[in-house]
Amino acid sequence: MTYHRTPTTYVPGSRTLPRDYYVSPAILAEEKEKIHARSWCCIGRAAPLAEPGEYVVRTIADESLIVVRDREGVLHAFFNVCRHRGTRICREESGRFAQTIQCPYHAWTYGIDGRLIAAPHMQEVEGFHTADYPLHEAAIAEWDGFVFVNLANDPEPFDRVWAPMRARLQRYSLSRLSIGHRVAYDVAANWKLVFQNYSECLHCPTIHPKLATVLPYQSGANDFTEGPFLGGYMEIKAPNESATMSGRTCGRLVGDLPEDDRHRAFYYSLMPNLLLSLHPDYVNYYLVHPIAPDRTLVESEWLFHPDTLADPSSRPRDAIEFWDLTNRQDWEIVEWSQRGVSSRRYGTGPYSARESVPAAWDREYLRQMGRG
Amino acid sequence: MTYHRTPTTYVPGSRTLPRDYYVSPAILAEEKEKIHARSWCCIGRAAPLAEPGEYVVRTIADESLIVVRDREGVLHAFFNVCRHRGTRICREESGRFAQTIQCPYHAWTYGIDGRLIAAPHMQEVEGFHTADYPLHEAAIAEWDGFVFVNLANDPEPFDRVWAPMRARLQRYSLSRLSIGHRVAYDVAANWKLVFQNYSECLHCPTIHPKLATVLPYQSGANDFTEGPFLGGYMEIKAPNESATMSGRTCGRLVGDLPEDDRHRAFYYSLMPNLLLSLHPDYVNYYLVHPIAPDRTLVESEWLFHPDTLADPSSRPRDAIEFWDLTNRQDWEIVEWSQRGVSSRRYGTGPYSARESVPAAWDREYLRQMGRG
Amino acid sequence: MTYHRTPTTYVPGSRTLPRDYYVSPAILAEEKEKIHARSWCCIGRAAPLAEPGEYVVRTIADESLIVVRDREGVLHAFFNVCRHRGTRICREESGRFAQTIQCPYHAWTYGIDGRLIAAPHMQEVEGFHTADYPLHEAAIAEWDGFVFVNLANDPEPFDRVWAPMRARLQRYSLSRLSIGHRVAYDVAANWKLVFQNYSECLHCPTIHPKLATVLPYQSGANDFTEGPFLGGYMEIKAPNESATMSGRTCGRLVGDLPEDDRHRAFYYSLMPNLLLSLHPDYVNYYLVHPIAPDRTLVESEWLFHPDTLADPSSRPRDAIEFWDLTNRQDWEIVEWSQRGVSSRRYGTGPYSARESVPAAWDREYLRQMGRG
Repeated sequence: MTYHRTPTTYVPGSRTLPRDYYVSPAILAEEKEKIHARSWCCIGRAAPLAEPGEYVVRTIADESLIVVRDREGVLHAFFNVCRHRGTRICREESGRFAQTIQCPYHAWTYGIDGRLIAAPHMQEVEGFHTADYPLHEAAIAEWDGFVFVNLANDPEPFDRVWAPMRARLQRYSLSRLSIGHRVAYDVAANWKLVFQNYSECLHCPTIHPKLATVLPYQSGANDFTEGPFLGGYMEIKAPNESATMSGRTCGRLVGDLPEDDRHRAFYYSLMPNLLLSLHPDYVNYYLVHPIAPDRTLVESEWLFHPDTLADPSSRPRDAIEFWDLTNRQDWEIVEWSQRGVSSRRYGTGPYSARESVPAAWDREYLRQMGRG
Repeated sequence: MTYHRTPTTYVPGSRTLPRDYYVSPAILAEEKEKIHARSWCCIGRAAPLAEPGEYVVRTIADESLIVVRDREGVLHAFFNVCRHRGTRICREESGRFAQTIQCPYHAWTYGIDGRLIAAPHMQEVEGFHTADYPLHEAAIAEWDGFVFVNLANDPEPFDRVWAPMRARLQRYSLSRLSIGHRVAYDVAANWKLVFQNYSECLHCPTIHPKLATVLPYQSGANDFTEGPFLGGYMEIKAPNESATMSGRTCGRLVGDLPEDDRHRAFYYSLMPNLLLSLHPDYVNYYLVHPIAPDRTLVESEWLFHPDTLADPSSRPRDAIEFWDLTNRQDWEIVEWSQRGVSSRRYGTGPYSARESVPAAWDREYLRQMGRG
Repeated sequence: MTYHRTPTTYVPGSRTLPRDYYVSPAILAEEKEKIHARSWCCIGRAAPLAEPGEYVVRTIADESLIVVRDREGVLHAFFNVCRHRGTRICREESGRFAQTIQCPYHAWTYGIDGRLIAAPHMQEVEGFHTADYPLHEAAIAEWDGFVFVNLANDPEPFDRVWAPMRARLQRYSLSRLSIGHRVAYDVAANWKLVFQNYSECLHCPTIHPKLATVLPYQSGANDFTEGPFLGGYMEIKAPNESATMSGRTCGRLVGDLPEDDRHRAFYYSLMPNLLLSLHPDYVNYYLVHPIAPDRTLVESEWLFHPDTLADPSSRPRDAIEFWDLTNRQDWEIVEWSQRGVSSRRYGTGPYSARESVPAAWDREYLRQMGRG
């Protein structure tokens, strides 16, 4: 794998997005339709969906989805909408269906593969056939233990879209990792500010004094420099062993990592809603959900080698606290960014060579919005 | 009186309303102008308006109205707006005017018949005549102890609109009944979902296990099956005597009821804002106020024979608790309906023969909206 | 100075503004652009800005501004927006900059005169010159101890706009006065109702029984009767010495006042956001900030001769309580006005001769909105 150093990919004259992109409800609605409702969005880990009947309810682009594994082991993402009178069917965040999925209003009953099985009194209606009323379904895919859905009627195949990522992180054995911690953040800023903030470390010396001692912002290189997937690595500065509060490793290596990767942290921004951070001894990721032009829900989980969570001498909290602190510093500064870019006088500003990834992200975003 | 059994009036192919009708603020605004501001809306009972000067302040289609009985015994519904600078005049929910209605801002003073009596310093203004500035007035009508107002400038006469109901419920002696309980519910759902829910009992077995034992959903028949007034009766299943928690009657018969009606409950949906439920021993009704596309205020009162309220051995709570429980079950399910019909993928679904009344209600609604 | 008695300036047939002006978000947005973002708005007193580096952060027409005095003693009003990525820079309400103003995000650093001094890594960007990126600046002016800003790119000179006020109140020595009390009121009414309410005392007998005994509403005269500055005086009725709870003077005369002014109170409405009340022994003023069509933030301060605040035998609370009581009575009635003018049936009503100032204010407002 060859890494290009960031500056080589800088496009001279790149400037930040205009004000409207951060404050307009119309643009948010457009983003949801053109980007989130047409792209492969991550809905989290596959682990809670191991057994037939197990389900989670997740929201993507304002759509409630029932994600469930059927008796043949196939995953489905059903729109949480009864075909009778439109009632939201499933109210729990997760669980296991015994045999069927039943709407509580008038008892329309579906199989866990989505077929309509029973609809009281509908047999009296001429021309009514249960076969015409399965639950609506979204496209679904799995990759390295993560689950993705696509709300589009005719989605681009996941394998084609995800080709650049296939096998790329195999050495991290992501599908084997276990969830060690989970937190949701309510951020008073536009979702794009969250992506842009994640995509550069020029702000680290001022915003993250702790992190800056472990991960020098001028170290490393980006391997993805254009397109929907962006990012690269930073060097973990000796004597630090990992990005933790103590600087020490917090548990077992997550995979069979070559020597180089044992001193590197990888940060990938994966359009439209996944941020993925890989460290030698743990992985953390973020799902970014736009709620309003000035509000974003960020769900985050920390993943560890199962042995790390089983071994009482390991210190997963050392990694959790490190990023929880760093995350909160980030949310605070993007909230102040949100306030500033709402000004009449805010105009696009110049990106530096150290901000080539946010600049590339903006270009990809504008392309997906049809303005590229 | 002849009742037609529900299935005979079912219109094949009836389907639920499209998504926009449940989520669009523009449609809610249109409904208020085309339906609520042009129809005879119930504002509750006439009892608090027995004496000259007694008034209540009520809101219909966002309009605050002062409803007052004048010295000649005539009821008025005044817009609660001073003709001087537009100040809302009356702030109490109810009370009794001594002689006049005075705006607290600059002391413009009106008679309780609405005429402007005094306007300080306006006599200095050439061409000003108090006769030109009475309080604005809405049309008002009484029926069986209920009061109705119509905000339209040229309202259709109440007697013509209400002709199908005149004398129809005479045997229930509604004007004699007393208020035994009052409650207001704040429901996170569109007002039409409240009407549709009231209009069928196909949901009773799943949503109301208690009620379903007393009132079998396949019993009874509808006498109003098309138009603004809809509904009919259900049989009270023996050994139950009424729709109460205990199944026993809770007090005196409300009127001089024939034998059949002593085992029946009548449920009428009366456009645009009244739901009226008649049981042998009590009556309860609902005023349905749209607040937002996804929010409705429902005001409900329970009415009893005065003897029931005076007699300590009667049990009005038995009826109150029965419907308060049932109401809350209904609000919960319509709130889940609201969430579901907000989905991009919700499409109109098929009504069964057991949902002929909601289907008829939708047709009348569309007609009044000019889309019929 | 010659005063014309109010009635002489009454324009026959003047009527209140139509409903839309009080409820439409589009009109509020238009007002902010046409009036508040183009006019000289008061941001309060100059006292906290006495020394170089001292700053306050104030909001005018939704714009956060850093108002700071530089090393040469010149006042600046900077848009609180970093020229790099638009971040809001300054978070404190007031303080003192040591040497520079630094954005916390990526450490762009400005002088307190607004010049960009340092921008990390931007030197690597070809064609980037710090001279091109000073903080954006609004126009600023001082008058009698008050500070004004104008957000327009090409503002009308303050001296020309303020010519009618220059020297007019010199005898009150306003720049010498000290702040004795400060309060912010959140009023659920349109900002224009606040101005109109301030501009007449016809409501005083009903709304302010206490005030009405001290300041007879038929006393006095207006010296400004047309244009952006309006108002005049009222007589303080003997034996009252001032507008205080006790009726007694609360401290030293604020200036070297002629005998007449020792028994008069002056009330000036100064477009677009300042209300200025002058009494022999104290001055109080209001900054009126539109927040929503039905919400206004009013910031108020009471100013006294420095000796009054230093002398334990004086009673500044006597004046503070008098107006705090009166203000709250006013906010309550304008909130009821807001409710009333939101009615479908509210129509423009007739102003009396005693409401010539609100009528003139409306005319000036419509002129500034381009509807005059």
